[in-house]
Amino acid sequence: MRRSQLFTKAFREPPSDEESTNARLLMQAGYVQKLMSGVYTFLPLGLLTLRKIENIVREEMNRIGGQEVLMPALHPIEHYEKTGRAAIEDLFHTQLSTGSRFVLGQSHEEVVVPMVQKFIQSYRDLPLAVYQIQTKFRNELRAKSGLFRGREFIMKDLYSFHSSEDDFESYYKKVQYAYRTIFSHVGIGEKTFLTYASGGTFSKISHEFQTVAEAGEDIIAICNYCHVAINEQDRSLFPRCPECDQDPQETKKSIEIANIFPLKTRYTDAFGLTVKNNAGEDQKVIMGCYGIGISRLMGAIAELYNDKNGLMLPKSVAPFSLYLIGLGKQGGDEAEKLYARLQKDDVSVLYDDRSDASAGEKFADADLLGIPQRVVVSEKTLAERLCEIKDRTTNVCSLVPLTDFINNMSLYVR
Amino acid sequence: MRRSQLFTKAFREPPSDEESTNARLLMQAGYVQKLMSGVYTFLPLGLLTLRKIENIVREEMNRIGGQEVLMPALHPIEHYEKTGRAAIEDLFHTQLSTGSRFVLGQSHEEVVVPMVQKFIQSYRDLPLAVYQIQTKFRNELRAKSGLFRGREFIMKDLYSFHSSEDDFESYYKKVQYAYRTIFSHVGIGEKTFLTYASGGTFSKISHEFQTVAEAGEDIIAICNYCHVAINEQDRSLFPRCPECDQDPQETKKSIEIANIFPLKTRYTDAFGLTVKNNAGEDQKVIMGCYGIGISRLMGAIAELYNDKNGLMLPKSVAPFSLYLIGLGKQGGDEAEKLYARLQKDDVSVLYDDRSDASAGEKFADADLLGIPQRVVVSEKTLAERLCEIKDRTTNVCSLVPLTDFINNMSLYVR
Repeated sequence: MRRSQLFTKAFREPPSDEESTNARLLMQAGYVQKLMSGVYTFLPLGLLTLRKIENIVREEMNRIGGQEVLMPALHPIEHYEKTGRAAIEDLFHTQLSTGSRFVLGQSHEEVVVPMVQKFIQSYRDLPLAVYQIQTKFRNELRAKSGLFRGREFIMKDLYSFHSSEDDFESYYKKVQYAYRTIFSHVGIGEKTFLTYASGGTFSKISHEFQTVAEAGEDIIAICNYCHVAINEQDRSLFPRCPECDQDPQETKKSIEIANIFPLKTRYTDAFGLTVKNNAGEDQKVIMGCYGIGISRLMGAIAELYNDKNGLMLPKSVAPFSLYLIGLGKQGGDEAEKLYARLQKDDVSVLYDDRSDASAGEKFADADLLGIPQRVVVSEKTLAERLCEIKDRTTNVCSLVPLTDFINNMSLYVR
Repeated sequence: MRRSQLFTKAFREPPSDEESTNARLLMQAGYVQKLMSGVYTFLPLGLLTLRKIENIVREEMNRIGGQEVLMPALHPIEHYEKTGRAAIEDLFHTQLSTGSRFVLGQSHEEVVVPMVQKFIQSYRDLPLAVYQIQTKFRNELRAKSGLFRGREFIMKDLYSFHSSEDDFESYYKKVQYAYRTIFSHVGIGEKTFLTYASGGTFSKISHEFQTVAEAGEDIIAICNYCHVAINEQDRSLFPRCPECDQDPQETKKSIEIANIFPLKTRYTDAFGLTVKNNAGEDQKVIMGCYGIGISRLMGAIAELYNDKNGLMLPKSVAPFSLYLIGLGKQGGDEAEKLYARLQKDDVSVLYDDRSDASAGEKFADADLLGIPQRVVVSEKTLAERLCEIKDRTTNVCSLVPLTDFINNMSLYVR
């Protein structure tokens, strides 16, 4: 894409009305814009990154047999009365002029259970896993921390249904592996810990995925031997690491980017969802739910991958692979040719063709936007048929023969 | 995909709680499920079709320079007070416990204008066109007609900004052409008419795209010479066809699937969005908005493409290109081989591998689901190395040598 055709701009200064690092950076670089506290618009660059994250998540969900659906945001209150959740604090409520009451979904147990109920009758219809990537709403009084705690946000929520505890347990493990793959793929694998937490009122434990970040609102106690953690607020349930039985070595602030939860039969019971077993008798259905905050993940990546000059996005989620700059008349001409060639080869490139921006402004923008590779051609480099490549993920610059760059493009782009 | 792995089922009978043809068919075939009146879940087959429609729309929007964003559903009421729309009837309202009031967006003028205001300062920043494909909400007292009139629905909304009337007019025409391409591509081009309608309080006329359908709630007067129409309720504004000045020849019921609207400076004035002209003075910004009901389009396609046995979807929007059935032991073995081959060739196929369904059930389902081509291999066809192909869009059956089918796959799939 030509930068001159992108309507968003990078700002010289971070926004004054935003405290969190993730939203400050993403707003300054023109990835998102704040409509109000906890509610953001995804601008073209931000939407490209969001879609990349979504597709990484989607691929893993499909791999573990998840079937994608899209459920509504508007839910009838009656379903929440059945599950006893109609009065929970952070739901948004709305209604028709006739008085029919709806809530805005912040999770979808009340929709997915009656939905699958129409399709499964027998134990042979199980296991079943359905998921969606969808917009959720939470009535947060104090929305803060940028994309970490929103009033409107995008989540992937997967729900699984099983005819036995064993089958559930095995799928629950499978989701854990899929989540690790996802977090590793988007670049936060090493900083993300499977975290033991309380299961609330209906299961002993649940699991979170916590990413170590200064801006996080949680505290986790980490076992470095096992690369797992314990949510500090549930420490009393887990006096030592549940995997190696040793004391966790350190505590750190972290952000919960995903959770997985054994729901057992809490919701299937509420809706009377049963299946026939092989003797033709009704049997209970065991359920799990598995969330990933998609927009929150984008916030976490921004929070972890930056320096004083801006974002430093991993290749897997950056909106473009290359940021192309041509300096001076000769550099500009060569950049045009290079851009045409890259377009032809389907390389994802943002070409800074602005005639009203200085070299310094272009360099600053390239850094701020955090596109993984910056490619510069100028009179000086072209004298030796070279281009300068800056790897924004390491900030290392190198001079590379233009022909090598073109012939070995796969080294530079995903 | 293997049919045995798809959790949805086609039902023998249409749903008893749904009157409209489009929703009855889509529900019976397992494309959508009704959560409540005017609110539907998109099941795996329906989501595949929805995404195909979205991508057809997206491609044309990108082609006319639209930049994709994703704006929130939750809007601060204050923005509507500025434009005088806070009290319009069919908005959903909600609030925080502090009393801060929000509405759920049914269109995005109140968000997009202040959004672009942060980025455009000069006439050189114009024209600008941004769009999104996003979920909208409408407080409909009597949601009806299936996917035609929903409380929650998916729309593409494009907004354009211009520094002159001429520039606006030329873009407005461009969108009309793009819309024609879209409607033709999804298969409703011939039945869809550019329709003249009142522009309301701030422009003389606006344009709708109306698709002729018995279930439609509008009536249009059609000029067959010009392939345009007039909305019957605005007939007094257009006594004759505005293009050839002759009387329209017939009136028909129709469904409004899109509209385009010259907003002039109504919303840009409300937010004080101006740009500097080349003399450095503030000048007004002229705006247009252009909607397409994405989920409504899916309803319109279902409404137009069906027979007594079910859906007959155009290739461009069908969830799969082929529905594969193997009959008997030998047919089953051959179907497995064929499925593997088609998978390898990346052909989009739904393979009905169910062992607990009869041949009759499989045929009925193939018809109901409306997949464009049904391919059957059986002992009888295989005796002569043939397969039977039924084109569901015409219901014509033919016997084709298996090798010809495999070697000329592009004739059968998109």
